[in-house]
Amino acid sequence: MNLPIIPSLDQACMASARARQDTLTKPQGSLGRLEELSIQLAGIYGQPIPSIQEKVIIVMAGDHGVVAEGVSAFPQEVTPQMVLNFLNGGAAINVLARQAGARITIVDMGVAVEMPLHPGLLVRKVAPGTRNMAIGPAMTRAQAEQVIQAGIEVVEAEIARGLDVVATGDMGIGNTTPSAAIAAAFTGQPPAQIAGRGTGLDSAGLERKIAVIERALAVNQPNPQDGLDVLAKVGGFEIGGLAGVMIGAAAHRKAVVVDGFISTAAAMIAVSLCPQVKPYLIAAHRSKENGHGIMLDWLGVKPLLDFDLRLGEGTGATLALPILEASLAILREMATFGEAGVSEKG
Amino acid sequence: MNLPIIPSLDQACMASARARQDTLTKPQGSLGRLEELSIQLAGIYGQPIPSIQEKVIIVMAGDHGVVAEGVSAFPQEVTPQMVLNFLNGGAAINVLARQAGARITIVDMGVAVEMPLHPGLLVRKVAPGTRNMAIGPAMTRAQAEQVIQAGIEVVEAEIARGLDVVATGDMGIGNTTPSAAIAAAFTGQPPAQIAGRGTGLDSAGLERKIAVIERALAVNQPNPQDGLDVLAKVGGFEIGGLAGVMIGAAAHRKAVVVDGFISTAAAMIAVSLCPQVKPYLIAAHRSKENGHGIMLDWLGVKPLLDFDLRLGEGTGATLALPILEASLAILREMATFGEAGVSEKG
Repeated sequence: MNLPIIPSLDQACMASARARQDTLTKPQGSLGRLEELSIQLAGIYGQPIPSIQEKVIIVMAGDHGVVAEGVSAFPQEVTPQMVLNFLNGGAAINVLARQAGARITIVDMGVAVEMPLHPGLLVRKVAPGTRNMAIGPAMTRAQAEQVIQAGIEVVEAEIARGLDVVATGDMGIGNTTPSAAIAAAFTGQPPAQIAGRGTGLDSAGLERKIAVIERALAVNQPNPQDGLDVLAKVGGFEIGGLAGVMIGAAAHRKAVVVDGFISTAAAMIAVSLCPQVKPYLIAAHRSKENGHGIMLDWLGVKPLLDFDLRLGEGTGATLALPILEASLAILREMATFGEAGVSEKG
Repeated sequence: MNLPIIPSLDQACMASARARQDTLTKPQGSLGRLEELSIQLAGIYGQPIPSIQEKVIIVMAGDHGVVAEGVSAFPQEVTPQMVLNFLNGGAAINVLARQAGARITIVDMGVAVEMPLHPGLLVRKVAPGTRNMAIGPAMTRAQAEQVIQAGIEVVEAEIARGLDVVATGDMGIGNTTPSAAIAAAFTGQPPAQIAGRGTGLDSAGLERKIAVIERALAVNQPNPQDGLDVLAKVGGFEIGGLAGVMIGAAAHRKAVVVDGFISTAAAMIAVSLCPQVKPYLIAAHRSKENGHGIMLDWLGVKPLLDFDLRLGEGTGATLALPILEASLAILREMATFGEAGVSEKG
């Protein structure tokens, strides 16, 4: 498949941001991760002092054939119900988007039922849900290519409307199961180390889920050297779509704030297809879902927040947006030692 | 000394907030610490769905006689220089306050030099810096009472102007040394486990600092059962002032967002004087300074952020303010399962 070229971070702008941080009226390095973040963003945007105006949350929804195996605490009808809740502004992601001053784009990548027409809903439906990965591939390789391409197109349309940073979000009953399978495929860790209780499975449910993931991996044998194969065999439409969003954003030098467990699985797909995506990613948080830490380690990213979140929708990514803005405000607005007449370290 | 009465958190409002969280369109508990925070705030304000409008950062400045022992990487003149930087809007705390939509009150609790008159500077100077705690008490017991009382009055004046939440901040060259001494006095841990590099000491400087703290504790023998004794013997004017702010805020049912190492030492003083302060405290972050974790554990609070900050000024506390607001927006604005027509857990 034809993937876009992703530029390297701009080293000169990073050096310039780093040098400026060291002249600001504070002990060098004393703003820790805020300083690192401002330097990363300078490299991403190719500007010595970048600024973020347009914040966009892309929430992708899809259903999963594997729910037939009883891997979720909620029924599949909740996927379209929650999409309607997003469209009506009543979900957690709507609340947090308003707080963060971000707009939301909701995309139907493969909800199992027909969604009513709504001006706020972008329909890029590949199929009415994936097939049951416990008995065969979740989707065809052509469908996997199609979802990646759709994700790239969705983010490119948002960039055309104005987008400085994209936060990723997901909705799809059952989608911690394919996400855990993706993580197990890439990291080689056993599903029991990665799968968690999702929306609230009991212990018997968790055992069942682990067994289903083991079966999906045994039946499909996804090739960890081939991201598209992993996506097709044990992925999901919204997961692949989000991977496309990440690839498309990076190709246009936009920062990507990666939400929790599902978005991190999407990031693993994106990075396996295009390793150059990685420096554009900012991990928003460490989710409560079991193996998220293993996935973040595999990506080599350090999450900003650790709030025991396990909701998805982009909630963690959206909570992190003010931190990015704060890091850039520091770089832009603080006085230097010279400007403020403050003595430097003795 | 005469300390105000601090009410318990309102259990009925906490139960109501908890019950409401469980009806909102998300798996129960899936917003983790945001949910806990909203419940704590409901208890603090005594409202089932509170809201935060007025956010105030109180930054207290003071100097420290112990800098004569060479415990800081920066010269003492930086304390008044940074106070001027605050007044001119060029410091990190100014930038972050603007981002958070908070106002700042700067208080001279005991800067070593006379500060120029400025409408933005509140002068509650107890003395031009503490005495050198390595050779005797940092202040008298009467001065310790005076700074606590001043802190209570400062926050009460802010409450009269309109204050829903207070974030604490500090400025005082050398003040990680008394803060570490306070922590060692209360926890019984050796200074070597608690003291850190502050604004950037080298290893020899850190060794010297640890020895100075050991000497201050040996010379003064602060009594950990008597918070005022600890403050007087090894504390600081800004540290005691911040303890007063915390006590005063709690007495008026206002949430206190505690910044890093110095503010946490102030919180230890406050809680030792008035244990009922504790549930009003929200620990903003885990600082990079060595023993901060020990101090947070002693208080029994879990920090929200972990960004390797070591600047003070209230920067970490101010970064945490949007998280408090987000937690309350979730409680206030999210749709319930009933309202949104979303099916509940099977």
